[in-house]
This record gives sequence, structure tokens and C-alpha cells, in this order.
Amino acid sequence: MDTPHPIQALVFDIFGTVVDWRGSIIREGQALQARLGLAADWPALADAWRAGYAPAMARANAGQDPWTNIDGIHRRILDSLIPRFGLEALPEGERDALNRAWHRLGPWPDAVPGLTRLRRRFVLSTLSNGNVALLVNMAKRAGLPWDCVLSAELIGRYKPDLEVYRRAAALLGFGVEQVLMVAAHPSDLMAAQRAGLKTAYIPRPQERGPGGWMESTEGCRFDWQAPSLEALADQLGA
Amino acid sequence: MDTPHPIQALVFDIFGTVVDWRGSIIREGQALQARLGLAADWPALADAWRAGYAPAMARANAGQDPWTNIDGIHRRILDSLIPRFGLEALPEGERDALNRAWHRLGPWPDAVPGLTRLRRRFVLSTLSNGNVALLVNMAKRAGLPWDCVLSAELIGRYKPDLEVYRRAAALLGFGVEQVLMVAAHPSDLMAAQRAGLKTAYIPRPQERGPGGWMESTEGCRFDWQAPSLEALADQLGA
Repeated sequence: MDTPHPIQALVFDIFGTVVDWRGSIIREGQALQARLGLAADWPALADAWRAGYAPAMARANAGQDPWTNIDGIHRRILDSLIPRFGLEALPEGERDALNRAWHRLGPWPDAVPGLTRLRRRFVLSTLSNGNVALLVNMAKRAGLPWDCVLSAELIGRYKPDLEVYRRAAALLGFGVEQVLMVAAHPSDLMAAQRAGLKTAYIPRPQERGPGGWMESTEGCRFDWQAPSLEALADQLGA
Repeated sequence: MDTPHPIQALVFDIFGTVVDWRGSIIREGQALQARLGLAADWPALADAWRAGYAPAMARANAGQDPWTNIDGIHRRILDSLIPRFGLEALPEGERDALNRAWHRLGPWPDAVPGLTRLRRRFVLSTLSNGNVALLVNMAKRAGLPWDCVLSAELIGRYKPDLEVYRRAAALLGFGVEQVLMVAAHPSDLMAAQRAGLKTAYIPRPQERGPGGWMESTEGCRFDWQAPSLEALADQLGA
């Protein structure tokens, strides 16, 4: 009889780890510009949009803001950026469609082949601060083969609150030590580690564009580290 | 431009609608009997096990019992049936494995082909009282192609509480009228209808075995009715 693999389920950060949010938002902006003739600095807009995200979630976790899902947070940030980027002429329907660009983010090239291999051996779930509808629409469009879509929205707390990681393992029916958190962000992984999960670090040096900033790994120890999800599949024997 | 389909997402009852719980539990019992030489009336055990399920959920919804997921409810019912079915010799590990037979229920023959067709056009989710781990394990084993696994466990109420249906539509990002509840049980569908969802009735005359009892449809009106999930795909143009 084979010894069961110590890991039974993999849970994935999504924005930056599985999908290229910056490249996708820039492409959506450029398509909008071509269609409506509205010029803007789309890379700067993508960065500013994303920069508003962590503080908004921290305020929700601290109880300073009422719970709002990521669609709502994204929309609030977008509205605040409209004047700065000269997009006042964008009609309401187009603002809503642009906000939903986060439902249409495209995967890194290794994501679908890597996940497809990993799914043969493990239970695969999202574990994202993105809301359920966003994650479902993204997966359907990109062909991301999840067994389960878990979101902070279902738990009522945002990562890196430890309850998110613990509850994900419990919902999947495994002990925390049987669940591997896969992420491009050391802060996410270290929180998962404090909750008892195993960790796999997938650095994404292109996440914030060529030469862009990356979170430091100083003082971090991960159980696995791989340059792609396909390389992680190799390491896990999937 | 095509008019968008008024239905955007289909949510499915699982036990009896998508999978044959009775036939699967009987087969699991017979396999156990062949392996351990423990005889029991497996069809009667399957029926008694299932019969304890609705009252336990009703007590949880009424606040009379603390919240327990379906794995816990199934185990409590199984333990209560052990003496009646002469299974006292079953060791703890085997009782646990038998309880997890509910994670291994097999689909009706039309389920995988029907869902595969429907998924091309609609978002497909479970909407079951079964817990997340049970639904994920079942789907992985049977090849049920869900876009999302929604469970009463994520909402903290059991069907037919209306909040379960409303919350499912909101999580999927649709209005209740854009979501079609698919079930073999009129009581489930009528609750979904009261919550504003559309309804599709898939009668499963074999659910409780040949000549077995079926819930009455008296006074019920459904938006769709089909003898199989493949026939439903035909009706919905998928």
C-alpha cells in the first residue's frame, strides 16, 4: 500500500500567483481606449488600483469599514481614481464593465498546465480575497480547473487573518498540516504558516511589471519553492 | 447581438437529483459485507439513514441543535442505527469509512453528460445541504464538472431556509431570477421559488428504489420539467 502523500489539498492565492492582474488590467484599459478614444496612463492606473486594495481589506478586518466584497472595494477605488486619470467622461455602464475586468484576468502561461497536472493528485481550491463570482467567472473564462472555489467572502474575513486559512482546511475536510498554501507573496505564506498550513512560494518577478517591486522573503522559510506551477507539480510528483 | 439568456446560472440539489444515494449506499454496504462477513439489510439501512437526515437539519435550522455539518449528522444517525442493524462488531475505523460512503455516491447515468453540456452555456454550482468536503470529494471521484461548490455549510442554514437560495444567487453575482434551481424534490423547488429563483423539476422515480415513494407535486408549478439532465440541456438550448 502506498503511503498517503502528506499533502492532500493545495489552496491558491490568485491575484499575481495564478493570474497576471497588471498585464490584464493594462490590456483592458488599452482596449477601452481604442474603443472609446479615452486616453489614460493604464499601467499607472493598474498599479494605483491595486495599491488601494490591501488598505481597504485591512480596514474591513479591523472592523473600521463594514464588510464589502472585492467587487465593491475595487469599484470604490476605481471611483476615487477617475479624476486623477482623467476618466470623468467614462459612462456608468463602462465604469462597471471596467471594474469587472478583475473577473477577466488572464493566467500566467504555466498556470493552466501546472494546475491540470496538480489536480490529478490533489484537491485544488482557490483561497483568495477575491469574491466568489469573480473567481468563478475568471476560472470559467481562463479554464482554471478548480475542485472548489473558496474565498474570503465565504469566511467573512480577509487574508492574512489566520481564520481564513484554518477555515479553508476545515471546509476541505483536512488538517491544516495536510493543506499547502501556494502564493507569490511571502506575507500570505507566513500567515498560512502561522495557521499551521504548509507553504509553497512561487515568485512572480513580472507581477508588477519589468523590474517591479517584490515583497522581501527575508526571514521566511517555505516548505516548497518553485519558479512555476509546472515546476511545483514536478516537485510534488504530480 | 444575441439577447442574453434569462437564466445565467444553474444550482443543483445533489442527493437524489445528481447522485443515486440509495443505490450507492447499498453497494457500499454489500462491499463491506463481502469484505468483513457482516450481514445487514442494506436497503433498509440506506432508507433509515436517509430518513434521519431531514429531521436533524430541521432541528439545526430551528436552533434546537447546534450547527453540525452533514458528515456529523450522518455519523450521529449511523451510530443510532448500529444496534438495530446488528452492526455492533463494526470497528471505529470501518464506521468512519462507511460514513464517508456519502462522499462516494455515484451519479445517475445522465448526470455527467448533461452537466457537461449545460456547463458550456451556464455557470453550474452545487446547492446542497451536503458539506463542502463531501461535495468536493464526490465531484472529483465522479467527474461532476462544477464551476463552484456551494453548500449550506457556507451559509450556516440548511435548505429549505430561503436564505440559502438568496445567498447562493448573490454569491454567484446574479439576481435570483437569473438563477435556476434544479432538483428532484418539489419541496426544495418550492422554497427556491419563494426566494425568487426559477425552478427545474427532474423527477427521479428510482430515488427510493423500484416503486419507491416520491414527493407529491400537487399544487406545484415549475418553470422547467425534464426526465434527465440531458433533456434539461435540450430544453435550455445547451
